[in-house]
Amino acid sequence: MGSVYEGPIQALIDELGRLPGVGPKSAQRIAFHLLKIPPEDVARLATTIVEAKRKVTWCRRCFNFATGDLCSYCLDERRDRTVCCVVEEARDIVAVERTHEFHGSYHVLQGAIAPIEGVGPEQLRIKELLGRIGDEGITEVILATNPNIEGEATAMYLARLCKPLEIRVTRLASGLPVGGDLEYADEITLGRALEGRRDL
Amino acid sequence: MGSVYEGPIQALIDELGRLPGVGPKSAQRIAFHLLKIPPEDVARLATTIVEAKRKVTWCRRCFNFATGDLCSYCLDERRDRTVCCVVEEARDIVAVERTHEFHGSYHVLQGAIAPIEGVGPEQLRIKELLGRIGDEGITEVILATNPNIEGEATAMYLARLCKPLEIRVTRLASGLPVGGDLEYADEITLGRALEGRRDL
Repeated sequence: MGSVYEGPIQALIDELGRLPGVGPKSAQRIAFHLLKIPPEDVARLATTIVEAKRKVTWCRRCFNFATGDLCSYCLDERRDRTVCCVVEEARDIVAVERTHEFHGSYHVLQGAIAPIEGVGPEQLRIKELLGRIGDEGITEVILATNPNIEGEATAMYLARLCKPLEIRVTRLASGLPVGGDLEYADEITLGRALEGRRDL
Repeated sequence: MGSVYEGPIQALIDELGRLPGVGPKSAQRIAFHLLKIPPEDVARLATTIVEAKRKVTWCRRCFNFATGDLCSYCLDERRDRTVCCVVEEARDIVAVERTHEFHGSYHVLQGAIAPIEGVGPEQLRIKELLGRIGDEGITEVILATNPNIEGEATAMYLARLCKPLEIRVTRLASGLPVGGDLEYADEITLGRALEGRRDL
């Protein structure tokens, strides 16, 4: 749409448009909203952003977000330290937690292997994962990277590294989403569902 | 999803979730993005927000956003001051400008009459519009409020006020969107298109 607004308005729209999932229309909508609401609400938003950034760091052990040295999962004594769920991003932990089915520890890779985007294994927290396997008595690593090309490649790579360590290495099952419709399933998902079929 | 994150992260997600069009999922996504990018980028976002809010006020004449006493349209000597396009919000000006068909002045009501939300005519910049009609020699008012219930009610209300002033009062045409499909038009729009049909 080009620069149709006066300086500070356009700067605001441009900055907001850099956020993930915020297109030019949404950026404009949010900008106009901010220009309309009371200044104290705007100040609080800006302060919350800066404060969160200042207070939140990485967990020294699992690389989840943390407000101290360790994240809440690593601090929780009730978690089973022998099973470690490996995810790409901190947000994936929340998805796993919502199942209420996992009570082990986590490890956040902080990405996935993506050669096209220049992300190789050395950019991920893989060395740290291998260190933990040695130090913490981990007996099973669940590879919970995304079921896409990058996630699969990362899982394959990690599986190859972990196998010689004589621990159990598992991968999340691929298949039809529960409540989904066979008719609308894409052929790759349906293929995976067939491949992974289970005896009843 | 409840408060599943540590304090500052949850506070950030909550603040972002208050922005228009940002649901809980998007708020989480933006929050995690901000926690991942360099601190200087986050600082720049926060500063831009606060700066925009500090520098941008209302145009004294038309109530568009302005960085000074008057907005860029009111400062522009080439605009035709005899025709005034009345819109609900400042963002609507941009939509009208994109047509390149209008070269008059604007007036921003800063809302529409919405009794359910407690917005009556006295909350809008209607008194100021009537003042301008008297002072500025406006000969036509184009009512460009939204084609929904609130916008129509506001247009009707304004038309009743402006008629005795012996100026031309017009309303944007309602009808089928260009490039749209008759088959998918809702009955109200199609009804309006019929009602407003033109001789060829």
